[in-house]
Amino acid sequence: MHSESEVKYSLECYRVCTETIQHCLKMGGEHIEQKHFNLMLDCAKVCNTAADFFMRDSAYREKLGVLCAEVCDACAASCDALEGEEMKRCAKACRDCAAACRGMGE
Amino acid sequence: MHSESEVKYSLECYRVCTETIQHCLKMGGEHIEQKHFNLMLDCAKVCNTAADFFMRDSAYREKLGVLCAEVCDACAASCDALEGEEMKRCAKACRDCAAACRGMGE
Amino acid sequence: MHSESEVKYSLECYRVCTETIQHCLKMGGEHIEQKHFNLMLDCAKVCNTAADFFMRDSAYREKLGVLCAEVCDACAASCDALEGEEMKRCAKACRDCAAACRGMGE
Amino acid sequence: MHSESEVKYSLECYRVCTETIQHCLKMGGEHIEQKHFNLMLDCAKVCNTAADFFMRDSAYREKLGVLCAEVCDACAASCDALEGEEMKRCAKACRDCAAACRGMGE
Repeated sequence: MHSESEVKYSLECYRVCTETIQHCLKMGGEHIEQKHFNLMLDCAKVCNTAADFFMRDSAYREKLGVLCAEVCDACAASCDALEGEEMKRCAKACRDCAAACRGMGE
Repeated sequence: MHSESEVKYSLECYRVCTETIQHCLKMGGEHIEQKHFNLMLDCAKVCNTAADFFMRDSAYREKLGVLCAEVCDACAASCDALEGEEMKRCAKACRDCAAACRGMGE
Repeated sequence: MHSESEVKYSLECYRVCTETIQHCLKMGGEHIEQKHFNLMLDCAKVCNTAADFFMRDSAYREKLGVLCAEVCDACAASCDALEGEEMKRCAKACRDCAAACRGMGE
Repeated sequence: MHSESEVKYSLECYRVCTETIQHCLKMGGEHIEQKHFNLMLDCAKVCNTAADFFMRDSAYREKLGVLCAEVCDACAASCDALEGEEMKRCAKACRDCAAACRGMGE
């Protein structure tokens, strides 16, 4: 049975990335540079899909969790390279989700 | 700007429906009768999509919220017609989400 | 039973919008103005969700189809206001999907 | 730039799995045994997500493609173990998608 934390943090990261994408669109400039912006789209999508697999206790939840953690790490680093409280909040949500995904196998 | 409650309750209903679908598969019988089961799939999907529109403050969030509330009401009634704590929990999540979606325009 | 055309055109519009979002990120400027960009995100998402409801012959496929057609019309108009072959292609995919959604009830 | 075939086959597999899930609900019995049914839900979801990553030429499209191919193979085997034309059609869509995902890196 899935633990609560992996569902909680993957849904939270999906949410914070989706909200922060709006912040990036408002800011413009390097916030919408294509590589960064796609990382945020990737992260929102993979977190949503991972949450789905976690909720259903899918046989593939650990493998998807590994990929989700990798995308979250890259997105956190990309957010940390930008200024602003919103970006720090997003980086934290990504790191929390990566940690929860990695804790799954334990 | 979106209120917290509509995002919170739509994500929660998406989650509880997805978990309860697994319960229905375990139970079999009337729990997997096609009309009921499809209502649960509809509800999980429309709640996930509505959450997305709410998080992005989409111009269509109210219209999608109206449809989401309608699906939630039907799913709640279908869950209430079945026995078990899990079904009552799902019916409650659906009603909470319907109320939050309807509160949006206020 | 669903007709082939509504599934085909909603998947095609989901695809073309998702590809055109990348084109907009490359172009910058008015292509990533927040209102236009969110319309494209809305359209990709609602077309994907509508395709899901069409494939499953959901009881809510017509209601979701009505909303999908409305979002497609708005997205087509927003794309037509921008220069370039890619934007015309996207506007066409949106109009084709709107027509297929509206044809559903017939 | 993504090739056409990986987008085409992942969308097609997403579609055929989603349609076949309805067939399984109608059939009942071993068609809705939890392990098989969850494989079909996994496959529909991971194909939809993979299609998204392919359309956007995501940096993670190959890694997600590897996981998608693995889920498709398992779903094809599970479908082949059941009787009926619908299940054979679904197994074929899964195998075509796995092949397209694996061809991506070439």
